[in-house]
Amino acid sequence: MKSSVPLLDIIMRYILKRKGKQMRPMFVFFSAGICGEINESSYRAASLIELLHTATLVHDDVVDNSNTRRGFFSINALWKNKIAVLVGDYLLSRGLLLALENDEFQLLKIVSTATREMSEGELLQIEKARRLDIDETVYFEIIRKKTASLIASCCAAGAASVGAGADTVNLLHQFGENVGIAFQIKDDLFDFQESKAIGKPNGIDIKEQKMTLPLIYMLNHSKTAEKRKVINIIKNHNNNPEKVAGVIEKVNASGGIEYAREKMMEYREKAFDILRTFPESPMRTSLENLVIFTTERNN
Amino acid sequence: MKSSVPLLDIIMRYILKRKGKQMRPMFVFFSAGICGEINESSYRAASLIELLHTATLVHDDVVDNSNTRRGFFSINALWKNKIAVLVGDYLLSRGLLLALENDEFQLLKIVSTATREMSEGELLQIEKARRLDIDETVYFEIIRKKTASLIASCCAAGAASVGAGADTVNLLHQFGENVGIAFQIKDDLFDFQESKAIGKPNGIDIKEQKMTLPLIYMLNHSKTAEKRKVINIIKNHNNNPEKVAGVIEKVNASGGIEYAREKMMEYREKAFDILRTFPESPMRTSLENLVIFTTERNN
Repeated sequence: MKSSVPLLDIIMRYILKRKGKQMRPMFVFFSAGICGEINESSYRAASLIELLHTATLVHDDVVDNSNTRRGFFSINALWKNKIAVLVGDYLLSRGLLLALENDEFQLLKIVSTATREMSEGELLQIEKARRLDIDETVYFEIIRKKTASLIASCCAAGAASVGAGADTVNLLHQFGENVGIAFQIKDDLFDFQESKAIGKPNGIDIKEQKMTLPLIYMLNHSKTAEKRKVINIIKNHNNNPEKVAGVIEKVNASGGIEYAREKMMEYREKAFDILRTFPESPMRTSLENLVIFTTERNN
Repeated sequence: MKSSVPLLDIIMRYILKRKGKQMRPMFVFFSAGICGEINESSYRAASLIELLHTATLVHDDVVDNSNTRRGFFSINALWKNKIAVLVGDYLLSRGLLLALENDEFQLLKIVSTATREMSEGELLQIEKARRLDIDETVYFEIIRKKTASLIASCCAAGAASVGAGADTVNLLHQFGENVGIAFQIKDDLFDFQESKAIGKPNGIDIKEQKMTLPLIYMLNHSKTAEKRKVINIIKNHNNNPEKVAGVIEKVNASGGIEYAREKMMEYREKAFDILRTFPESPMRTSLENLVIFTTERNN
């Protein structure tokens, strides 16, 4: 990632230092590994997707005005918005060039499709969130595009990198999609769990008026007047902790948490079913463990 | 550009309505035309580059907090920052998919290289602008990357789209680079021309502390004390019209305007020289006229 611009090199070193769990590269490598021998092409797939994912996070922090990420200051907090947007674009173009210079066209197609779906999913979410009234079909369409499509592309790209046939690539794409959906439901559930820092659920999604699965379940199992009342509270909570706690309590009482957990386990089972069509191997076990981690992680 | 997200379709129609001069597609088509017969591939090159350019403008308006563009409200002004960043990403991914689905790999390489150079150029400019003290070599490196690389990629991609050989593609890349540099110097000169709206130069670049060629010339032909004084004024003008007018006057007196105009004509001549290596044709005349327009336009 060395460049001709000193400032860029400083920022790249900073980004490397605060790297995350790197789950997406792991999905690439293990998916490559159950289909064949991990090779240079698998490394390029993992690099492109991690670069793209990092670019997205850098842009997200600008848009959300976030000052921290993973316990470090965000790029926009340290170097201003303009630089953060440019750094995101730069990461993306470096990823594209890495793939293009090595004629990784199948990889590029897999990843570009995911990129289009990710922006479509985010925009669909914003469009629907205005009314705070979405049904489960729309919810699943949004998270399939917004979150699951990138994890699906990791698994498909991993398989493609070792020369797997179209059927196997598709199968691993489906596997990744199911894992991705389970991953997002797990994220949704965090909003209702006791946070270590404050000893009670923080309800950030509720404060930001994000429609999570437990909340959708509760709303769709309330009488019309009750539903309207809760939507009203979400719209006008003014960060009042009692109001937010009230919504969390209602979700708990409705059984929304158990329902979301069941749904998550359903998608996790679908993913395991696909894995079981592959012969047993250490790579398959690693993928299974990664799926278990995805749905049992604490952050 | 039809999508599955209604909000996205509304925004796309809005973007189409306020399209600009579309100079970049013209460079693609005329460059294709002097090398061969314009074909589907030339259209895809023009589309990809215009999509990329539009994505950049949408992101620029977010970063600069601009509320208008080409006399219309900006996307961020009408739909908020988050949507504008996503729409930019979406435009880019649609452009990439258009090229990938048609196996336009040479086009993708040409355009990705330009994208990397554009973000490097912008970041280099930000890095250097802090000290408000750059020499001409750095200035030309910045504008070659920031502005000229995309116009160069238009001309190279046009030539490549009709199957021109590597030498011809390179030649048209050089042609576009010279035009792009002339284009940027013309932009620099606008800052010192009387604006129709207010009847005097508006000095926007000076207010934003952007280093333009006439200003650099003046600073590099001033005594050290004088130079320090002007830099001080630029840093602390507080939008005071008299202070800004004072800087413009100094640039005028230094001969910076004439110098920049000469430099612009030098690059324009280099571009014409390259064109003259092609046989005379209506397409060559069109390219010549486009270069003349680039350096004589009023907006």
